[in-house]
Amino acid sequence: MIFFRNDYGEGCIEPIMKLLQQANDESNPGYGEDKYSQRARELIQSKLPDVPSDIHFIVSGTLTNVVMMRHVLRPYQCVLCTDSSHIVQHEAGAIEQTGHKIIQIPNSSGKISAVSLSKTINKLNSDEHFLMEPKLVYLSNATEFGTVYTREELEEISRICKENHMYLMIDGARIGQALMSGIDYTLNDIAKWADLFWIGGTKNGALFGEAVVITNNDLKPYFRHVQKQSGAILAKGWLIAMQFIGLFENDSFYQCAKYSNELASIIQNEIIRLGYPLFMKSTTNQIFLVLNQVQYEYLKDKVDFEIWTYWDENVIIRLVTSWHTSKTAVSTLCQYLQLAMDASKAAEAQAEKEEEETENTEETPV
Amino acid sequence: MIFFRNDYGEGCIEPIMKLLQQANDESNPGYGEDKYSQRARELIQSKLPDVPSDIHFIVSGTLTNVVMMRHVLRPYQCVLCTDSSHIVQHEAGAIEQTGHKIIQIPNSSGKISAVSLSKTINKLNSDEHFLMEPKLVYLSNATEFGTVYTREELEEISRICKENHMYLMIDGARIGQALMSGIDYTLNDIAKWADLFWIGGTKNGALFGEAVVITNNDLKPYFRHVQKQSGAILAKGWLIAMQFIGLFENDSFYQCAKYSNELASIIQNEIIRLGYPLFMKSTTNQIFLVLNQVQYEYLKDKVDFEIWTYWDENVIIRLVTSWHTSKTAVSTLCQYLQLAMDASKAAEAQAEKEEEETENTEETPV
Amino acid sequence: MIFFRNDYGEGCIEPIMKLLQQANDESNPGYGEDKYSQRARELIQSKLPDVPSDIHFIVSGTLTNVVMMRHVLRPYQCVLCTDSSHIVQHEAGAIEQTGHKIIQIPNSSGKISAVSLSKTINKLNSDEHFLMEPKLVYLSNATEFGTVYTREELEEISRICKENHMYLMIDGARIGQALMSGIDYTLNDIAKWADLFWIGGTKNGALFGEAVVITNNDLKPYFRHVQKQSGAILAKGWLIAMQFIGLFENDSFYQCAKYSNELASIIQNEIIRLGYPLFMKSTTNQIFLVLNQVQYEYLKDKVDFEIWTYWDENVIIRLVTSWHTSKTAVSTLCQYLQLAMDASKAAEAQAEKEEEETENTEETPV
Amino acid sequence: MIFFRNDYGEGCIEPIMKLLQQANDESNPGYGEDKYSQRARELIQSKLPDVPSDIHFIVSGTLTNVVMMRHVLRPYQCVLCTDSSHIVQHEAGAIEQTGHKIIQIPNSSGKISAVSLSKTINKLNSDEHFLMEPKLVYLSNATEFGTVYTREELEEISRICKENHMYLMIDGARIGQALMSGIDYTLNDIAKWADLFWIGGTKNGALFGEAVVITNNDLKPYFRHVQKQSGAILAKGWLIAMQFIGLFENDSFYQCAKYSNELASIIQNEIIRLGYPLFMKSTTNQIFLVLNQVQYEYLKDKVDFEIWTYWDENVIIRLVTSWHTSKTAVSTLCQYLQLAMDASKAAEAQAEKEEEETENTEETPV
Repeated sequence: MIFFRNDYGEGCIEPIMKLLQQANDESNPGYGEDKYSQRARELIQSKLPDVPSDIHFIVSGTLTNVVMMRHVLRPYQCVLCTDSSHIVQHEAGAIEQTGHKIIQIPNSSGKISAVSLSKTINKLNSDEHFLMEPKLVYLSNATEFGTVYTREELEEISRICKENHMYLMIDGARIGQALMSGIDYTLNDIAKWADLFWIGGTKNGALFGEAVVITNNDLKPYFRHVQKQSGAILAKGWLIAMQFIGLFENDSFYQCAKYSNELASIIQNEIIRLGYPLFMKSTTNQIFLVLNQVQYEYLKDKVDFEIWTYWDENVIIRLVTSWHTSKTAVSTLCQYLQLAMDASKAAEAQAEKEEEETENTEETPV
Repeated sequence: MIFFRNDYGEGCIEPIMKLLQQANDESNPGYGEDKYSQRARELIQSKLPDVPSDIHFIVSGTLTNVVMMRHVLRPYQCVLCTDSSHIVQHEAGAIEQTGHKIIQIPNSSGKISAVSLSKTINKLNSDEHFLMEPKLVYLSNATEFGTVYTREELEEISRICKENHMYLMIDGARIGQALMSGIDYTLNDIAKWADLFWIGGTKNGALFGEAVVITNNDLKPYFRHVQKQSGAILAKGWLIAMQFIGLFENDSFYQCAKYSNELASIIQNEIIRLGYPLFMKSTTNQIFLVLNQVQYEYLKDKVDFEIWTYWDENVIIRLVTSWHTSKTAVSTLCQYLQLAMDASKAAEAQAEKEEEETENTEETPV
Repeated sequence: MIFFRNDYGEGCIEPIMKLLQQANDESNPGYGEDKYSQRARELIQSKLPDVPSDIHFIVSGTLTNVVMMRHVLRPYQCVLCTDSSHIVQHEAGAIEQTGHKIIQIPNSSGKISAVSLSKTINKLNSDEHFLMEPKLVYLSNATEFGTVYTREELEEISRICKENHMYLMIDGARIGQALMSGIDYTLNDIAKWADLFWIGGTKNGALFGEAVVITNNDLKPYFRHVQKQSGAILAKGWLIAMQFIGLFENDSFYQCAKYSNELASIIQNEIIRLGYPLFMKSTTNQIFLVLNQVQYEYLKDKVDFEIWTYWDENVIIRLVTSWHTSKTAVSTLCQYLQLAMDASKAAEAQAEKEEEETENTEETPV
Repeated sequence: MIFFRNDYGEGCIEPIMKLLQQANDESNPGYGEDKYSQRARELIQSKLPDVPSDIHFIVSGTLTNVVMMRHVLRPYQCVLCTDSSHIVQHEAGAIEQTGHKIIQIPNSSGKISAVSLSKTINKLNSDEHFLMEPKLVYLSNATEFGTVYTREELEEISRICKENHMYLMIDGARIGQALMSGIDYTLNDIAKWADLFWIGGTKNGALFGEAVVITNNDLKPYFRHVQKQSGAILAKGWLIAMQFIGLFENDSFYQCAKYSNELASIIQNEIIRLGYPLFMKSTTNQIFLVLNQVQYEYLKDKVDFEIWTYWDENVIIRLVTSWHTSKTAVSTLCQYLQLAMDASKAAEAQAEKEEEETENTEETPV
């Protein structure tokens, strides 16, 4: 089986493992007050030269979203996001568990459109019976479907948020992949547009860990308190910090993302060339394609992938590349895709032939 | 500075680091459905031969307590524990944040006494205006003060819980140290007495990680759901599992605990010999002693320790040993303790002398 | 202004007011342990002869939904209901505030269809990443749009719930109106289909108060505890009980509902006769119709109604009748509706005429 | 049985009942946007001439505390109050259910002392591991034990709160009784000292209802949103407003409180004269006294009272007077107290006699 199931199937990049080993016998203060946490904060801050930020480390993604929402929102404030959002589909009610209502906006290629956003905000604000304050726009970049927001889209959404006294929060589980997808903005820009966001380590070469970046001064105080109360401070806090030192010290973060995007692009091009329907055109490391039954049967024991959903007779699957995916695996996958297509066409031809014969038989009178 | 601040100041024991390196390039399924998690569960289960259990892994202690409480308790049910409990003193309201009330019982050497427990339960159940159900007894073993429950105490508390249809939950952040403190029971006994408990890795040689053990069949279903919703499932779940494989495969868990207890015992004996007052007599790896100002001033720049609390003119400090503490560090600490005592006595003698002289001077008539 | 804004715009029916006065000087035990609460429970139970139930009284509707959800649901369990539900649209996040996720199903005339329900349950249960248990179906009868479930629909939904180990909860804010809408089932049937439901007093002649009926034995214990904790037990509990004695002792509950339905039916028939588009055909006391601007301008200062929503150039308004609405008011309303239609037609004719003239003018050559 | 069980055992004072009847057929807008709510707000505001306030009405006390706490506190902020507080002892975990931790301070005659308060705040703020912000001081005036804060005490507590950037919230379930207990301050003073407080109607002559007064401008916005979300807005909101119109239009609020205090004072004086031990000296309408078994047995079937707690062989009972208590009932109670004391003394004399005889018998030699 070749592994295209996800981008968090292996350990970590070499520099991180080295750091862990080298420092294993050092004594450090706990709870993120060590020198590595300090160094990791400086490294990330250096990528946001225009925006002095508060930076915190949390071990995993859902916990990060939970802590950030609990920190930012008052009970009467709600979150706006797309219906395809991670917090809607894949966090088992974690946000609602914190007491906050999510208002879903239909997605457009996994993204929230400025037009729908404005319309929703206006509708909520004009409904005197709603009695909630729409306060936070949550979006993921890259999205759940592998698409990426353009500079114009983010600027417009950021503008709408400011105009409506709302916060913009960006879930950056795959923000590395978004930044390396050929767009014309950087982490520094993100820091200007968002009031708070996070930089994902888990899905881009780290053992674990996400870096929370708070840029809005109003939101800086007391984050650590909410983090502690949520059980989201690691005793040996330096371990998460080391992930980000390893990722950012020599820009491995960007290289890993670029590499995985490139491999994904090879796969997606081949998929298009072979004539498979795409569920969504991606510019990052997640590829969604539609398989018929023959293709699915051919591939399922050779390639380790995730079934995204079922669609009539078809199966939509997700193929994911990462820092760890080998070029050989990509070649092999492409060959399998070719063979699956061949098998499918052969089966089709056979089916047509059989149908024809049946028709002939049926037609044949005495 | 020699480090006696805590037992989570360094990385991990060798076997764990080796496992991490060896498996770094393997591809594993996510969220704890990998072979290492399976292996770690089997290893822990093998220590509880009489009690078929559900075993889960969570990255840190407060999060573990939060998930377990959320899982077990209905809104109208409350927790009973000592006023010195970790969930009362050191979790920043994490339990209340899940919506549950904690009823505090005054501790006796850090422990909950069966008599106070019974009395509290009876009082609550007889108060028709209370309208809450006392449902869970929470205790830590070893306690926050380094003391350990006896077999008789745990049997009695377990009996009281069963009699009152309550659950017994044991916080095992330092359960290794408790088991190696010379008591006459094992994990297998704990599993019989408690409805659920956890085995702490973080404070006994692991990078992170606590193993939740659910022994009561009624409490087994849906734990994973609550875990997910609480943001407490790690994507690369095998990383926590490896901590427990490393700890239990060759009984490092027990050896680390035994070693740290032994070093602590040497220190405590020396403290007694030197005549320092103990705040609490400990049988595990945390030693609490009372320093006067001279002693404190002498030690504070030579030894890295935590101030527990202030007591009139005195300071109560905590000295902690671990798997990582060296025997040399212990010797050095003992010398410092001797010298601090000498300094203190000298200062006292000097003060007495000065006082005497003052008195003499004063007394001296013309 | 004639009042058709809602069905909770006035005080209460005569028998309730009499009870309040008569008993004003009696001394009663507090918190619902008085003889009136007992009597009200017996009266309601007498309407559910086949289903021994636990009955509780809560002062208002949202609070009732909150307490029932908190009582029934575990953290990992979610609610299924239509996107038009009261708990989705008009409770300001009250359900999410209790920590529970709501899964919305597109409504069909305000109702949840058995087919969509089944499909949603299957989809959720087959998604291994969802990690929540769909546990409670919430529906309102009558619905937010004035429509009523048929016997077959409720039987089918009840069957689906049982099959899937889910609870059926019915919000009965207007259950009186539903029962008097010409359907072929009674409260006794509702009690068989639902695991718990509530009977609305506020919108059918009481000053306030909703009666919670719990039929499922598993859900009976500890409701009072959750009620207390939620601040939902009234000190002078007999006051709510008296509402239900007044409503049920001589079947005023049914008469009020029948009366309001009949008046609404007169209005709706007139609306149809006059050619107004209906937004939704209602069989209870809420009528939704579409007004154009001329009609709206004509009516808005003569009739006190609620704007439901805007629809292009049109306004959808809601007209509500109640136990208190007079037949004279209904006649006056019908006259206004006639006049508004006349005005609208005149305006249209005038506009056409003007357009024609313009066209004629334009067309007219030299 | 004469009724001294509580001050919420009967309906309401005459003016309130009249208002309810008179307005029963008027049509009013819902949810507190009616003219009565407006009038009630103005009346209450007129009692706080120096402090422009936001005023809201909630139907009952625990719900009022819940909404106010949810409104004011962020997740990481905790409440400080005495261990005898209503929110600690009699609200079934309602505050914790909203996610907030309560820090208890040992009470002094039911009151929080400025010294203990300061000490607690300093201790919490100096504990770097606590990671919560003490933010709100909650106190009841009159207290649970019938005692009343002096002007100096409230000024000092208010000063401490301001100094520490904390809010002062006063639970005024029996604030009428406090104000009529002979102290030298008014509602206007309370409004200056507290950031928010509530005026209790339920226990001072209303059917139900508490008036929330928010004086701190920072806390004014969005209260209504939190109220709605908590299910704490009554559809027929004017009903609560009418309670406060009835209470304040002719100062019935003060007269009721004064009257009940005076009757209580008669009873307490008699208790002292008769030589019963008081559990607590009260200056309001709750009297706590200690009964021995003979006295208790004598009284329990003649007087309807509440047992407060058990104390060795004795029973501490609470006697409560209200606007509704008759002077005759008070006389009768005093006679019963005399007779109970007589019975007790007779029993004692008898016991002594018997003992003596036994001794004599025993002593008698051959």
